[in-house]
Amino acid sequence: MTTVDIHASQPYQVHIGPGLLDQVGERARALWTGPTAAVVSDSNVAPLYLDRCTASLQAAGFQVVSFVFPAGEASKNGKTYLELLEFLAEHHITRADGLVALGGGVVGDLTGFAAATFLRGIAFLQLPTTLLAAVDASVGGKTAIDLQAGKNLAGAFYQPKAVLCDPTLLDTLPPEDFADGCAEVIKYGLIGDPALLDLLEAPGPLDVETVIARCVAQKGRLVEADEFDTGARQLLNLGHTLGHGVEACSHYAVSHGKAVAIGMVLITRAAIRYGLCPPEVLPRLQALLDRYHLPQTTQYSAQELYTKTLSDKKRSGDKLSLVIPTAWGESRLHSIPVKALLGWIERGLQA
Amino acid sequence: MTTVDIHASQPYQVHIGPGLLDQVGERARALWTGPTAAVVSDSNVAPLYLDRCTASLQAAGFQVVSFVFPAGEASKNGKTYLELLEFLAEHHITRADGLVALGGGVVGDLTGFAAATFLRGIAFLQLPTTLLAAVDASVGGKTAIDLQAGKNLAGAFYQPKAVLCDPTLLDTLPPEDFADGCAEVIKYGLIGDPALLDLLEAPGPLDVETVIARCVAQKGRLVEADEFDTGARQLLNLGHTLGHGVEACSHYAVSHGKAVAIGMVLITRAAIRYGLCPPEVLPRLQALLDRYHLPQTTQYSAQELYTKTLSDKKRSGDKLSLVIPTAWGESRLHSIPVKALLGWIERGLQA
Repeated sequence: MTTVDIHASQPYQVHIGPGLLDQVGERARALWTGPTAAVVSDSNVAPLYLDRCTASLQAAGFQVVSFVFPAGEASKNGKTYLELLEFLAEHHITRADGLVALGGGVVGDLTGFAAATFLRGIAFLQLPTTLLAAVDASVGGKTAIDLQAGKNLAGAFYQPKAVLCDPTLLDTLPPEDFADGCAEVIKYGLIGDPALLDLLEAPGPLDVETVIARCVAQKGRLVEADEFDTGARQLLNLGHTLGHGVEACSHYAVSHGKAVAIGMVLITRAAIRYGLCPPEVLPRLQALLDRYHLPQTTQYSAQELYTKTLSDKKRSGDKLSLVIPTAWGESRLHSIPVKALLGWIERGLQA
Repeated sequence: MTTVDIHASQPYQVHIGPGLLDQVGERARALWTGPTAAVVSDSNVAPLYLDRCTASLQAAGFQVVSFVFPAGEASKNGKTYLELLEFLAEHHITRADGLVALGGGVVGDLTGFAAATFLRGIAFLQLPTTLLAAVDASVGGKTAIDLQAGKNLAGAFYQPKAVLCDPTLLDTLPPEDFADGCAEVIKYGLIGDPALLDLLEAPGPLDVETVIARCVAQKGRLVEADEFDTGARQLLNLGHTLGHGVEACSHYAVSHGKAVAIGMVLITRAAIRYGLCPPEVLPRLQALLDRYHLPQTTQYSAQELYTKTLSDKKRSGDKLSLVIPTAWGESRLHSIPVKALLGWIERGLQA
């Protein structure tokens, strides 16, 4: 088992290792004093792992209640959030009790936001069941729900008491979802971890525990430097600015991971054309995306991508911050005037 | 004008003085950089003051959008909260813009919670229009909505950028609502401000600006010592533990202020019977309650009050923390076993 310390305003640990699902009870015991654990999961994950999670919690002496909602981003809304809050109130959850988020990013975001706001804040623990949630959503304290007007428009910065990543849970993950997580893993390599890129390029099966630990450690360092997302943490957006454009153009038919993969290719190619990135970065990136079954191209036009990208909430004033690779395993922030973005997208799309 | 500095995790100032409503624009200008101010108000307050508020904000160069909901505690729910979030998203409010809460406690609590969670936190400014909101809800950072299962069960600790108390706005307050605020003012005197009690006992008209400033300063000191409500801040609950019982027995037909008044009489009488408070405190308290048109008795039985009081969320384990007066203008926390509470209520009710 590997443990990564996260030095946020509320410090906590991310544990990574096989068998952690069956240790959730004893670990929760050390994190809150109340008699009850409320497990939140979705209709994909609950049939696979809820019984084991409940058994472990009961063996540690907890009363267990569980709230299961229909799987999918469409559930990450105000309605499910309020239903979860009412569920917690009806089951007399107190400030001494805690929540367990058993699932992927949607479960983690929604449970975290409920934990942040129920009784103005109670304990929660995350058990990510997707690679994406393990390397991304479980660190950083960004909890959220979607509004009708857009994704993640409401939420809170709120840290879990602990994260338990059991890589054996990823065995049941559909290959598409595993690939989505790989896009974020490659991103972690590109923004500052050449050794992680070496691992990803090496022949043979992937050491998932080590990969997750390296990603979590890097995200932890960036979050520590910038918990409320005003500076260094923006490096995590590599591939995301244009990726959001691709997602939005497709009305979210293109998954987040695939969109980020395409976004990384576009921004790398444009950075090379502008003389800001050495040319050899692109073919190595493309080889990695191929290996992990991720796309590199999009059918949307530069103008379409430009329009959708600009509706993203990260813009402030007439400047835009892009994250660009500057070497293999190194990236930096690059500020451009908003209207220069179209030129970047055009250069990113040129074969 | 009087200004009180609040030293919370995010420091801010409470300004108290006539004419502040017409200065909201220039003051908001100094608090956020974005082009827009979103005013949140209710159907009682908007017809009286929304136009003046909007005019001041526009004169300072803001685009103004306003969200007005039906007045009353019944609106402080998840539905109104989500409608407000969607309204903010539809009007493209960004992290550089801010909200203005123009109203009483319900408006302040709801707006504060929306500000705490929209885009994970944007600026807000409070313009309390009731005495209760001015002395209580505007300081302390407790934002909230009610759930079906109970009041204030969801929310966040979140500080406003500033509070502007314009006492001339209280001139339109119904006498019943002014009396409600007076109960909290008397409470501030009893828990630690004998000079405030002198002001309240003095003949002639009340100096509302000074009264509000003294209450705000005291609440500020308690919140500073205990922002997340785990210790000293509990003094603010004088009269509230049994008051909640009265409110709940009446299904909230008895207002919060009146319930707190009754709660203060009950706890003071019981503390005297237990030899923990000098007897002369009770007649002085009763004279003040008379003067400010507040009740002192309830028709509910000790058993009814006991049952409802115990369902309050402030209990932890088998101990209960009561706030009891120990002199005129001085109170302290007193821990009792939960089952001793019935005896306290019985002694509080005995004539």
